[in-house]
Amino acid sequence: MEAISIGLLGLGTVGSGVVKIIENHQDKLMHQVGCPVHVSKVLVKNIDKERAVEVDSNILTTNPDDIIKNPEINIVIEVMGGLEETRGYLQTAIENHKHIVTANKDLMAVYGPELLLAASANGCDLFYEASVAGGIPILRGLVDGLASDRITKMMGIVNGTTNFILSKMSKEGSAYENVLKEAQELGYAESDPTADVEGLDAARKMAILSTLGFSMNIDLDDVKVKGITEITEEDLQYAEQLGYTMKLIGIAHRDGEKVEVSVQPTLLAEAHPLAGVQDEYNAVYVYGEAVGETMFYGPGAGSLPTATAVVSDLVGVMKNMRLGVNGKSAATPQYEKMLKDDNEIFSKYFLRLHVSDEVGVFSNITNIFSDHHVSFEKILQVPVKERELAEIVLVTHQASLEDYENILISLRDLQAVKDVKSSYRVEGGAKR
Amino acid sequence: MEAISIGLLGLGTVGSGVVKIIENHQDKLMHQVGCPVHVSKVLVKNIDKERAVEVDSNILTTNPDDIIKNPEINIVIEVMGGLEETRGYLQTAIENHKHIVTANKDLMAVYGPELLLAASANGCDLFYEASVAGGIPILRGLVDGLASDRITKMMGIVNGTTNFILSKMSKEGSAYENVLKEAQELGYAESDPTADVEGLDAARKMAILSTLGFSMNIDLDDVKVKGITEITEEDLQYAEQLGYTMKLIGIAHRDGEKVEVSVQPTLLAEAHPLAGVQDEYNAVYVYGEAVGETMFYGPGAGSLPTATAVVSDLVGVMKNMRLGVNGKSAATPQYEKMLKDDNEIFSKYFLRLHVSDEVGVFSNITNIFSDHHVSFEKILQVPVKERELAEIVLVTHQASLEDYENILISLRDLQAVKDVKSSYRVEGGAKR
Repeated sequence: MEAISIGLLGLGTVGSGVVKIIENHQDKLMHQVGCPVHVSKVLVKNIDKERAVEVDSNILTTNPDDIIKNPEINIVIEVMGGLEETRGYLQTAIENHKHIVTANKDLMAVYGPELLLAASANGCDLFYEASVAGGIPILRGLVDGLASDRITKMMGIVNGTTNFILSKMSKEGSAYENVLKEAQELGYAESDPTADVEGLDAARKMAILSTLGFSMNIDLDDVKVKGITEITEEDLQYAEQLGYTMKLIGIAHRDGEKVEVSVQPTLLAEAHPLAGVQDEYNAVYVYGEAVGETMFYGPGAGSLPTATAVVSDLVGVMKNMRLGVNGKSAATPQYEKMLKDDNEIFSKYFLRLHVSDEVGVFSNITNIFSDHHVSFEKILQVPVKERELAEIVLVTHQASLEDYENILISLRDLQAVKDVKSSYRVEGGAKR
Repeated sequence: MEAISIGLLGLGTVGSGVVKIIENHQDKLMHQVGCPVHVSKVLVKNIDKERAVEVDSNILTTNPDDIIKNPEINIVIEVMGGLEETRGYLQTAIENHKHIVTANKDLMAVYGPELLLAASANGCDLFYEASVAGGIPILRGLVDGLASDRITKMMGIVNGTTNFILSKMSKEGSAYENVLKEAQELGYAESDPTADVEGLDAARKMAILSTLGFSMNIDLDDVKVKGITEITEEDLQYAEQLGYTMKLIGIAHRDGEKVEVSVQPTLLAEAHPLAGVQDEYNAVYVYGEAVGETMFYGPGAGSLPTATAVVSDLVGVMKNMRLGVNGKSAATPQYEKMLKDDNEIFSKYFLRLHVSDEVGVFSNITNIFSDHHVSFEKILQVPVKERELAEIVLVTHQASLEDYENILISLRDLQAVKDVKSSYRVEGGAKR
């Protein structure tokens, strides 16, 4: 049986991990696929650079065409990252009938649909499990495991950096800036942490997950995003006091035909299965009409977990090659995209206000809520030390986003309201 | 495109669920498989019985041959349970080239290898995701998601009844017998709960999981089993006090070439991802060398979750039919079975003793441990009310099972030891 030949785009930590796994598991791969597998070309920027893994320098190249146009290469593994240039490479590779495995969430969130279509048209597989939540086999779970179910809700902790920061802030009562600095020193956060802490990375993953779970083309622009940079120690203290844990949660929710997708700091009831997900771990909670609650938990990033997911996809492609059934991986979305309007998005909210400590203010505020037919689950007022202010903290019952935003506008218009300190979505126990 | 014809063995709660899902999701199934699917025959014991689902009485039959020998049926779904008779039906169905989907863990734990071989030999698929942990797509995760990894440890809460009982005992401080009775009234436990509470059901699932995860034929007899019937409120109080949660845990552990598989009540460190799995939920924790820790969480039983898993497998079979690649599902185990000896099985242990409250007893006891080179992580002695006894509670460091059992023998020989009240395996935080 002829060997399968692989071209690797990129040889960073994930790429090196892929090379190592393929080398160390030759026997197991042979057993599963029935033929040998070799990495025969690797695209790098600098051939002479020292590597974390031993690679024959003869297979290194700086010319992408040596891989994407090389007739001897069957499968291209893309672990170089990047957007426009990478998209071009993969398009060319697909036109040259190479199967693709990618770990690139930026690329899949933006160009996923077009690349999947191109792959289908050319009889190629395009697998991208590693692009979402590193080592958790969640995409297969969505596609295969829950194939016959109707998924109505997905909630994900899909960014390890922010979960690490929030876990540490909660446990130690430390300020955001200090924990971010520590995370950067430990290598859990990048020197420019924007994509993580502003929620963009999580938004990309939620776009990919909801596209697959709802069988609907959800673009990155469809995801409402709010990051964690404004979360304070006070917020975390109130969260704990009220029985919640603060997490950056991606929510994708379907009601009837319409969906909402967002990423935002969320107060999660401590009984929720996601509430126990600590540190750099990721988890995706899925609610299906028939199956009920399921959750997939694991390392969200890291070079070895991500490399494992890449090689699992590689095995999938190779099995398909042996069976001669490539090119069926791109399930065309079944439904047309229908996004909810703001008056169709319902949630509970946590709100913390600073108000003048005067008679009548409290009822002025509660009146604004009742004018919009929003009631409270909890409300407490405490004096603010050394200032003539009171702090009001409340958790609403279900309210539409439209009503809630109108309430915020009215509150800000009220003279007695000095500051809207913070406002977060609240998710109750489990269940839909 | 010709319709795919299904024969159903059994029309209990799971069978009715399968019928409902297939009816309600015709569109989705068409989209995924590309042709219509019909349930065309159903084997029942009594045709005139009232059903939870509306089924045309013309398709009901009491003769299994109408299904297993019916040339017009492509796929047999077995949801009737049972062992010997069912095995015979499925053998006949396979000989008649029917693909099989089964939710029968008893059958798969005992006759899985032989049925999988027969299916392979006849070019048939045999899928059994629903037989382990109902709605959690764990088998696919093991086969596909972690395909390129080396799994070294699996730990599972794989029996909902016992997890419900232990959760309730822990939360409410109630006695086993009372909670069992309540569980029976609520329908979480059967009137004869033996298979659940003695750990047999969990053992069957662990045999299936470890066979797949370690690629090694693990028989039910290879699984060491201890149930939950002897757990007392005192044990649970100590567990909590020491920072542990009591769970019935199935452990499958590989060291080098050798494996151990057991099901036993275990004190689980509260930081372990499985410790938060409450009530009737199930979860399987998997440690892979590359991926690290992952966990799959969901409903372990229930007719709709199980029916969902059955239909997911059905979709898998139908996709394979459309691609013409059936009969490759039975991965032949790669390794020969090698079980650890008792001196190769290591764990920490919790032990609770009643001893005479006399000078020298404490050191007699600790000497027995040090004679076997086992040291303590924690040890405490408390007087027992109104009796001239002391209670000694200890948690050991890692000890071999052989050493630990010899220690128990020596302790029982000691005159001062009045009673070995309880003894449990202890599992630390996460990590291997």
